[in-house]
Amino acid sequence: MAQAQAQARAQRRRNGSGSECKEKEFRERSEGQGPQLQHRLNLTSLNNNNIINNANNSKAKATMVTVLAMTVAMLLLLFYSSSTSTGITSETTGTADHAVSVSSGADADAVINLDHGDPTMFEPFWKNAGDKATVIIPGWHTMSYFSDTSNLCWFLEPDFANQVRRLHRLVGNAVTHTHHIVVGVGSTQLIHALLFALSATETHQPVSVVSAAPFYSMYPGITDFLKSGLFHWAGDATSFKVNGTSSFIEIVCSPNNPDGALRRAVLSTEAGKLVHDLAYYWPQYTPIRGPADEDIMLFTVSKATGHAGTRIGWALVRDADVARRMVKFIEMNSIGVSKDSQVRAARILQVISDGYELPDPDSTTRFFHFSRRLLADRWQRLRQAVEESGRFSLPQFSSEFCEFTEEHAETYPAFAWLRCDDESIEDCEGFFKSMKVLTRSGRHFGAGPEYIRISMLDRAHNFDLFVERIASLGLG
Amino acid sequence: MAQAQAQARAQRRRNGSGSECKEKEFRERSEGQGPQLQHRLNLTSLNNNNIINNANNSKAKATMVTVLAMTVAMLLLLFYSSSTSTGITSETTGTADHAVSVSSGADADAVINLDHGDPTMFEPFWKNAGDKATVIIPGWHTMSYFSDTSNLCWFLEPDFANQVRRLHRLVGNAVTHTHHIVVGVGSTQLIHALLFALSATETHQPVSVVSAAPFYSMYPGITDFLKSGLFHWAGDATSFKVNGTSSFIEIVCSPNNPDGALRRAVLSTEAGKLVHDLAYYWPQYTPIRGPADEDIMLFTVSKATGHAGTRIGWALVRDADVARRMVKFIEMNSIGVSKDSQVRAARILQVISDGYELPDPDSTTRFFHFSRRLLADRWQRLRQAVEESGRFSLPQFSSEFCEFTEEHAETYPAFAWLRCDDESIEDCEGFFKSMKVLTRSGRHFGAGPEYIRISMLDRAHNFDLFVERIASLGLG
Repeated sequence: MAQAQAQARAQRRRNGSGSECKEKEFRERSEGQGPQLQHRLNLTSLNNNNIINNANNSKAKATMVTVLAMTVAMLLLLFYSSSTSTGITSETTGTADHAVSVSSGADADAVINLDHGDPTMFEPFWKNAGDKATVIIPGWHTMSYFSDTSNLCWFLEPDFANQVRRLHRLVGNAVTHTHHIVVGVGSTQLIHALLFALSATETHQPVSVVSAAPFYSMYPGITDFLKSGLFHWAGDATSFKVNGTSSFIEIVCSPNNPDGALRRAVLSTEAGKLVHDLAYYWPQYTPIRGPADEDIMLFTVSKATGHAGTRIGWALVRDADVARRMVKFIEMNSIGVSKDSQVRAARILQVISDGYELPDPDSTTRFFHFSRRLLADRWQRLRQAVEESGRFSLPQFSSEFCEFTEEHAETYPAFAWLRCDDESIEDCEGFFKSMKVLTRSGRHFGAGPEYIRISMLDRAHNFDLFVERIASLGLG
Repeated sequence: MAQAQAQARAQRRRNGSGSECKEKEFRERSEGQGPQLQHRLNLTSLNNNNIINNANNSKAKATMVTVLAMTVAMLLLLFYSSSTSTGITSETTGTADHAVSVSSGADADAVINLDHGDPTMFEPFWKNAGDKATVIIPGWHTMSYFSDTSNLCWFLEPDFANQVRRLHRLVGNAVTHTHHIVVGVGSTQLIHALLFALSATETHQPVSVVSAAPFYSMYPGITDFLKSGLFHWAGDATSFKVNGTSSFIEIVCSPNNPDGALRRAVLSTEAGKLVHDLAYYWPQYTPIRGPADEDIMLFTVSKATGHAGTRIGWALVRDADVARRMVKFIEMNSIGVSKDSQVRAARILQVISDGYELPDPDSTTRFFHFSRRLLADRWQRLRQAVEESGRFSLPQFSSEFCEFTEEHAETYPAFAWLRCDDESIEDCEGFFKSMKVLTRSGRHFGAGPEYIRISMLDRAHNFDLFVERIASLGLG
């Protein structure tokens, strides 16, 4: 294994430099290409040139367009006023694609939904990957409930487990050989499974569940929506008082959703249990500082590879009893996890690892390099637009050494945690809504209304429109 | 639509008669065939001929074999003693395939696990279906969380929904045009979603959840395992006292798991809400008496087509608000349902409908006819063995007119609800365990230990061994 790791590292070093122009060319070529993808994008691209021209012509014209757009937006707001933003529901009442299809078709009128973290940005890579990323499932395959009855997690497809371990070994972001793998319907089901696994032995009172603010907006809802007698949401971990007789669960999301910060537990672990949500600990988002070795670590293909619709997450769990109780939860909740999606996720992870480990890789096969370049470009453009607007600010991150790429690397979070510095704006989410940009208010993350969370992972055209709109504010 | 239904009906009539010999020949040819399937079956088929010969030679020899087998079984019991049978866990501590792989390999020593309803019986049909049942999913397909943002159930793949409606129209077992479709991770997740959807508006006290005994063994666990403040299990519906001020949810499973009986609600619906679990209301199990038109109806591909590993169920829900609340649950529980599995399930349902509706169908394309023949054969053999044993009894069903096949048809439930009539046997599950046949005790279904539930849907070889063992009792 050590030899394989050394080989992989040498391979990465060979891949790590050069070919950047080729990669950029590929990115530009592949973003938005292909008949089906193009078809989707056409929904929002009918008048792309118009808005760009307007913005470039003069300040006066841009201001006029902005005022007009905001007027139309106020009417559209009625349509969206019923949306709530604690879960994903808000996204369903009007996503960009949908909203555009019922609007005039002009980009200026397009509602851009960056409320959720739908990772469609990665589609071009997978389009370019072609047949090797395709799965073929005959009608009689994987019909049984069971994948491997010799495994503690009896519904875990062995090939998926192998590819999970292989990818972690390649990237070096988590230890796996000391941990059990529990597969779930996304990491969301795994969080539920963990709340059950870590609390159900406590019978006297519900266990407190906490996370340091700003925390992922779904944690409170996940914990409380069934009014379980086993656990309850107790809010911001930094203001939680540890009581010697009661237990707690602290969820540590690192890099953090929504703000991209690296996190450590804020509470003592003696009285409580820690869950490390490492959904964003991948090289496209953050420098890899070495393999995480926590008792419980959560990952998901949604954020690792962009396959949100596949609904596959995995937990690395050191303690067999905790893993067994998670399996019990998933058994009671859904009698296992889709085999088809596990088969597909295995293929997707395999393509990523092959892209680095097979002979003669080129720039188009290296997923993390591809994704990192896209995000770097987006962050550079967003920071420039935000600076030009003069009204907002974004978190700053220092560059660090990435053990995967073996070079100093910047942080490019999956979400922009934007602060409205303009004191005339009381509700930042509302302000962006008036620009027909749907975001998620800081209030849902245990922070104030001056903050919003913005997805950086949407399709290129939507992101382009969004940056244009922010940039246009600076012209007003 | 009426015309299409008439055409389909005419087509079915044409298919309904003749070709029986051809079908039987196909069944015999395809059961257990194919390299991969054969490989799995080899685990339990090493000495099939031996046990059959022994059983046929003489009473004395059979008795000796039985005594020997029971001795070995008592040792094996220690291995299985920790299993619980309220969920599927018991199956994971030692399924037939697994247990066989660690045993001597002889059929006489094989532990046959008929505890769960793993529908592997249907594999030969899908093997024979070939390419048309195969799905091909390119790497960049269905990456988004969203399937159709214009639909109340935003994670429902439109093609899957179309095939669900088409199949119900073909079979005539449920109305769909007046109902919303909510897809779930199997019907298990949908039951959770319904408990939430039907109870969460009640804040003063938990809603009582009931079902008439014998009821599906997972209902109590599903309801209570998170100690929700919204709902709680209140047991057998027939002994539940309706209180004017409190609400209840009655789950009506028809045909019923475990006993195959047709069911109606036993409680007045004025004070409560009904959930109709129609997982087994398909032509292979029961005569179709016309389209069900209940407010809430549950189905699952697991029992309809045999694809348990795909984890796809669907609810037909009349009330939009109930459907919306179910969608909210699934959003909070798993942020939707695997698109890959929906794509695959759509293909599977399509193959079944095509098999009846495309021109020139033959006996090998008609799924329900194929499956019904297998079950008829199994039930005939089981009833004969049970009769010969003189110790057990099985439910009796009268034949009824099936509106799908347009002929009188018998009932062939997915489970045998067997009663130990021999008073020397206090624990029927334990008695079968001593024969190395794992079943599920009646106690888990709200009935007595004289009952057991036995899956009729396992692979052919396991079922054959099971029937041999029962038959051998009559020889003792």
